[in-house]
Amino acid sequence: MAKALIKLKEFVDILFLGTSAGAPTRQRNVTGLALLPDQGSAWYLIDCGEATQHQLLNTPLSVHGLQAIFITHVHGDHCYGLPGLLASAAMNGRKTPLQIIAPKGIQAWLEATHAMSESFLPFELQFTAVEEMDGWQDHAVTVEATKLSHRVPTFAYRFLEKHTEAALDTARLHAEGVPPGPLWGKLKKGEDIVHAGKTFASADYLHYPYPLRGIIVGGDNDQPDLLREASKKAQVLVHEATYTMDVAARVGGHVQHSSAAAVAGFAASAGLPNLVLTHFSARYQADSEKSPCISEIQTEAEAHYQGNLFLAEDFARFRLDKTGTLSKLA
Amino acid sequence: MAKALIKLKEFVDILFLGTSAGAPTRQRNVTGLALLPDQGSAWYLIDCGEATQHQLLNTPLSVHGLQAIFITHVHGDHCYGLPGLLASAAMNGRKTPLQIIAPKGIQAWLEATHAMSESFLPFELQFTAVEEMDGWQDHAVTVEATKLSHRVPTFAYRFLEKHTEAALDTARLHAEGVPPGPLWGKLKKGEDIVHAGKTFASADYLHYPYPLRGIIVGGDNDQPDLLREASKKAQVLVHEATYTMDVAARVGGHVQHSSAAAVAGFAASAGLPNLVLTHFSARYQADSEKSPCISEIQTEAEAHYQGNLFLAEDFARFRLDKTGTLSKLA
Repeated sequence: MAKALIKLKEFVDILFLGTSAGAPTRQRNVTGLALLPDQGSAWYLIDCGEATQHQLLNTPLSVHGLQAIFITHVHGDHCYGLPGLLASAAMNGRKTPLQIIAPKGIQAWLEATHAMSESFLPFELQFTAVEEMDGWQDHAVTVEATKLSHRVPTFAYRFLEKHTEAALDTARLHAEGVPPGPLWGKLKKGEDIVHAGKTFASADYLHYPYPLRGIIVGGDNDQPDLLREASKKAQVLVHEATYTMDVAARVGGHVQHSSAAAVAGFAASAGLPNLVLTHFSARYQADSEKSPCISEIQTEAEAHYQGNLFLAEDFARFRLDKTGTLSKLA
Repeated sequence: MAKALIKLKEFVDILFLGTSAGAPTRQRNVTGLALLPDQGSAWYLIDCGEATQHQLLNTPLSVHGLQAIFITHVHGDHCYGLPGLLASAAMNGRKTPLQIIAPKGIQAWLEATHAMSESFLPFELQFTAVEEMDGWQDHAVTVEATKLSHRVPTFAYRFLEKHTEAALDTARLHAEGVPPGPLWGKLKKGEDIVHAGKTFASADYLHYPYPLRGIIVGGDNDQPDLLREASKKAQVLVHEATYTMDVAARVGGHVQHSSAAAVAGFAASAGLPNLVLTHFSARYQADSEKSPCISEIQTEAEAHYQGNLFLAEDFARFRLDKTGTLSKLA
């Protein structure tokens, strides 16, 4: 019990490594996103577009702390960075196995890539085919995949923490004569105590005032509504908003991407308190003198969503606090 | 004839896109190098490590002007950037066929990569297996491959211009009574003229005071002497110098890289007037306070070579003038 409770603060930050759709720009790399605890060095990578390893050089993240890689779909801007990331992990001396949860084709492609380049990784790759995955978990999180709607089989991953921070029922402890101090500390850590000849079970005095934190990271998708069920256990949705509605109409539905309006409207109807849009078409410029401007995505989303809205940028870092509120750190 | 002469000034600049061995650093990307004319938009790419397309975003080069890609060997830091570069060329609307000269394995790997990611390029890839190549040429250059010595089959490419700038035999024209002016201009352009009832053939009045310019770009290699024959028609050698001698000895010969001393000694003995070292181990830092420092590579090379020596940096651009002298532009 005590061991699990130590992990309670983990799994809270979202660090964007790439936020451009399809091709890199000078300001935005192709898709990559890190989920990481507010302490320690463990982290998860979701998608790995080309040059994700280059982006990591400008963050505190190390390939040694990488716990698992989740790939949403096989399009190159979401996975072409895998071979280089793995090669550099090998050059950096990684020895511990690495889990890769991905569409089936990724495993065969990585094996073909390593055969072509005569690369021999000094650590094991442990593959899970997302198409057949019945949940994934480690000590800190459970991960469930939801199938989305795109030109190729594409998935969203919902990361849900296993434990929330415990609080002590101090009123009851006072009433039952247990004095504040080291005994309370032990109870909070999950240890049972003996006081005045009587045993007090930790579990009887702990309660959990905060919800389990859940973060959904979607792949490319033109039907946000597919995430309605997953959203019931999530406070944050990270979703592509490749275009504004007008551009989406001009480009045509065959690309199977979402407009800012479509995602924002879904997030509102699902009651999601925090929404982060990403994966923007390179045509949207930061410079407001040019058109179309990235602020048009923001304006369109705001018209359909009154929650906590953010547009992702490369290296933007967000923290989901224990109450379920997301804020931007940098 | 006139058409060929127009090309005389082409093929002169070397622009480094990546100069780090094995893995990228914050200052240096993995290997990539552009050869380009001093005017126009045509260029050649030699090697294409991951994020070469990202580096291009910070140069004047466009995927539309790319004439051909030459790959020296199959190690990832020399070719993992190909799929992304091709995908972005497609997104940018390239339609013209693209030639790829590379070890055989590259073609099958690119085909496997496109099958995996369900990518369909709107332009044709025309492969030449370097192992079977008996020279390559286009309007401006001939390219010959030399097999090197490395852990996998590796090649150097020597780019040799087809035409040097022509000069007019003005003394003879004066003597034969052809006055300076438009007639001289026509002769210099390769056109025959008629003057005072007599035909003057351009070829009789042109001479070529400058040598054909040749640039050798080597792949990874522990036996520079293999380039002795190719060096007879070259003024520039671009070659890896991954380590200084002391580090090379410590790392061991199995990696099959060259020390600065080995390459410099070869360039001196081959009489090469210009030498550019690249592909430096990440352990060499720019900061002279740290050890080992990149200046140690320079010092070691200078002890063995008195020619025109440069250490490459990302985005450094060099120009080979018509006399065969290399200088750094930026």
